[in-house]
Amino acid sequence: MLIVQKYGGTSVGSIERIMAVAKRVAEAKKQGNDVVVIVSAMSGETDKLIGLASRISRDPEGREMDLLLSSGERTSAALTAMAIHELGFPAMSFTGRQAGIITNSLHTEAKIEKITGGLAIKALKKGVIPVIAGFQGITETSEVTTLGRGGSDLTAVAVAAALGADLCEIYTDVDGVYTTDPDIVPEAKKLGKISYDEMLELASLGAKVLQTRSVEFAKKYGVPVVVRSSFNNNPGTLVVKEDKDMEKVVVSGVAYDKNQAKITVVAVPDKPGVAAKLFDAIAGANIVVDIIVQNISSDGKATDISFTVAKADSGKALRITEDIVRELGAEEVKMREDIAKVSVIGVGMRTHSGVAAKMFGTLAKHNINIMMISTSEIKVSCIIDSKYTELAVRVLHDAFGLGEKRGKSGRKKGG
Amino acid sequence: MLIVQKYGGTSVGSIERIMAVAKRVAEAKKQGNDVVVIVSAMSGETDKLIGLASRISRDPEGREMDLLLSSGERTSAALTAMAIHELGFPAMSFTGRQAGIITNSLHTEAKIEKITGGLAIKALKKGVIPVIAGFQGITETSEVTTLGRGGSDLTAVAVAAALGADLCEIYTDVDGVYTTDPDIVPEAKKLGKISYDEMLELASLGAKVLQTRSVEFAKKYGVPVVVRSSFNNNPGTLVVKEDKDMEKVVVSGVAYDKNQAKITVVAVPDKPGVAAKLFDAIAGANIVVDIIVQNISSDGKATDISFTVAKADSGKALRITEDIVRELGAEEVKMREDIAKVSVIGVGMRTHSGVAAKMFGTLAKHNINIMMISTSEIKVSCIIDSKYTELAVRVLHDAFGLGEKRGKSGRKKGG
Repeated sequence: MLIVQKYGGTSVGSIERIMAVAKRVAEAKKQGNDVVVIVSAMSGETDKLIGLASRISRDPEGREMDLLLSSGERTSAALTAMAIHELGFPAMSFTGRQAGIITNSLHTEAKIEKITGGLAIKALKKGVIPVIAGFQGITETSEVTTLGRGGSDLTAVAVAAALGADLCEIYTDVDGVYTTDPDIVPEAKKLGKISYDEMLELASLGAKVLQTRSVEFAKKYGVPVVVRSSFNNNPGTLVVKEDKDMEKVVVSGVAYDKNQAKITVVAVPDKPGVAAKLFDAIAGANIVVDIIVQNISSDGKATDISFTVAKADSGKALRITEDIVRELGAEEVKMREDIAKVSVIGVGMRTHSGVAAKMFGTLAKHNINIMMISTSEIKVSCIIDSKYTELAVRVLHDAFGLGEKRGKSGRKKGG
Repeated sequence: MLIVQKYGGTSVGSIERIMAVAKRVAEAKKQGNDVVVIVSAMSGETDKLIGLASRISRDPEGREMDLLLSSGERTSAALTAMAIHELGFPAMSFTGRQAGIITNSLHTEAKIEKITGGLAIKALKKGVIPVIAGFQGITETSEVTTLGRGGSDLTAVAVAAALGADLCEIYTDVDGVYTTDPDIVPEAKKLGKISYDEMLELASLGAKVLQTRSVEFAKKYGVPVVVRSSFNNNPGTLVVKEDKDMEKVVVSGVAYDKNQAKITVVAVPDKPGVAAKLFDAIAGANIVVDIIVQNISSDGKATDISFTVAKADSGKALRITEDIVRELGAEEVKMREDIAKVSVIGVGMRTHSGVAAKMFGTLAKHNINIMMISTSEIKVSCIIDSKYTELAVRVLHDAFGLGEKRGKSGRKKGG
């Protein structure tokens, strides 16, 4: 079997941890597998580098940040290769460039365009275990890029796809994907199996186990992914293509995201092109808008538009909105940062009705007001006051019977 | 003027220091110069990385060490470019690869083969200040290499040569090149000017201001080098082609090196090819032999061979020598590590006689026994018991009148 193993920052957080990783890699190799290793920077390292940069500049150029940050994974890759070699297995470290991770030139948030495998694949063919620095790539014009937070997951999945690997193992500091955050709901249960689409919703909704883009990539190329802990031998959660079993389960998990801000434009003239103008400008600043709600105006003259963005982008989004609003003659712009998004996710929703009604009813029963609603085929999201986040997660998790003591709509053992 | 400025580890040792460096760079740019910056890793960084590796392996592969160590200069280059940019000057950081520093594949001690300038020269032509990570290069097969300790000096001089720079400034934590180590001789005087050959002897003899290979490179391509401090505005020492002025000075400096070990092969059969066999084997292990002395055997049957190597190589050299000796039928091999090399240097020796005699006489007067002697056109070196090092340096410095209060053979003001 060809296995791609990705180890996150805590998994390579110290020399002792790196040596434990080396043993795990050696074990997989001993069992007759070909292994490719992807590593993140040692935990804390990336933040340390960001801290240094922030002492020099409030807004350092992306290109320089990329050269700076790409050091962290080079270090951990070299050390991990040494540790594997020390156990008597041939290993070589490779930078993103040397592994042929070609990206576009959007610094600090680059997109992978192709993977040639470069020197890493040559080494693999000779029986060497390549240890590839995650999170980084190179443009066609030879500039160093990084893939954004969590980018090492993407490196792993993309390399697995490029090599046609049988499995991509994402090693982290948790045992797998849970029905919700176990810190909030102690009865939260580890899922044995989950579909790409469900994982995508969970990841993008704030369950930080697996980076969103890596799940999209895994889905696109059908890469089977396992999320598991590098600190024990528990089996983890398999993220795969949807199967019939999964449809039996209406709701797989409850996610939340406190990292959102809501911007409302009050009394916009209700004429064609207004929303387009606003959201064009916001998209032009590379800000991703999540939920958009536009109320129908009763008199046909003015309307309110509300939308949510990540908190990190809220200041910028507000400024852009205010500029546009002045042009359009809207009344005012309001922003709220004390909001949260709570969502229930499950592929079974496609064939089962009543999930949204049950969600709204459950929140209402606990006097939690819903500010915005957004739905997709497999999820329902509500924007609520952030102070109710934990309560909402707990009551929804319970209402959909997701805990260890399962209700009717709960997932069966082994998922 | 096109100026290459190299900043050592202490000069970029903290964010505050990096910002001071940025100001100095900006100043040179403001005065109408084109500036190319080369940086070392922040002080302590390389040792930290070596420390991490040593906890994993006693003998890590050179290839992995190179990927590991090259991180340090990338970090400082990116931070320095940010700091210059922050002052309002266009700056971009470049890796060794991006600056087209092509080396052979001798990992951890790679030799520069050519410099294409790469992206860095394109940026320079557009008025940008390129900040190049020192100490590192890339092979024709895309492997990352490093140039050995002090390698950033070499990067600076080689880049200066490749660009035809008017001046290469080496910024360090001392004011320049002194007649000897001021820690041993407080009267030691900073030299205003020194020839490449003198600097070469001083550098290789243990005055650690400028890396030896970088001086060879500067001499070969006629790059004028200034060694000066980044902590003040003192003028520093100019290292240039020998001129007539210099010949008037018999001795420019006194150097010492405690980092040596002496190996003696006792009673080697005195037949052709013996020395060749021994030194071939040692050279084959990439160990540089410094002084070799072979005594003429009185009976024509056996001879003693003594040689010195760097202490770091002494264990390896001893093992190799013992293996060869067994083959050759020599009596025994002895090693001494408590030795030092003391040298007097000066281009004026070419035209003035009596320097060696004066040196031997001075050491004898102070009861310092000479174990080995080595001479070149412009230096005389003696191997002595290491406990006499400081004494020898002091008395020689005085005997040749090198201090602030100058004797007849001393260098004139401004030298």
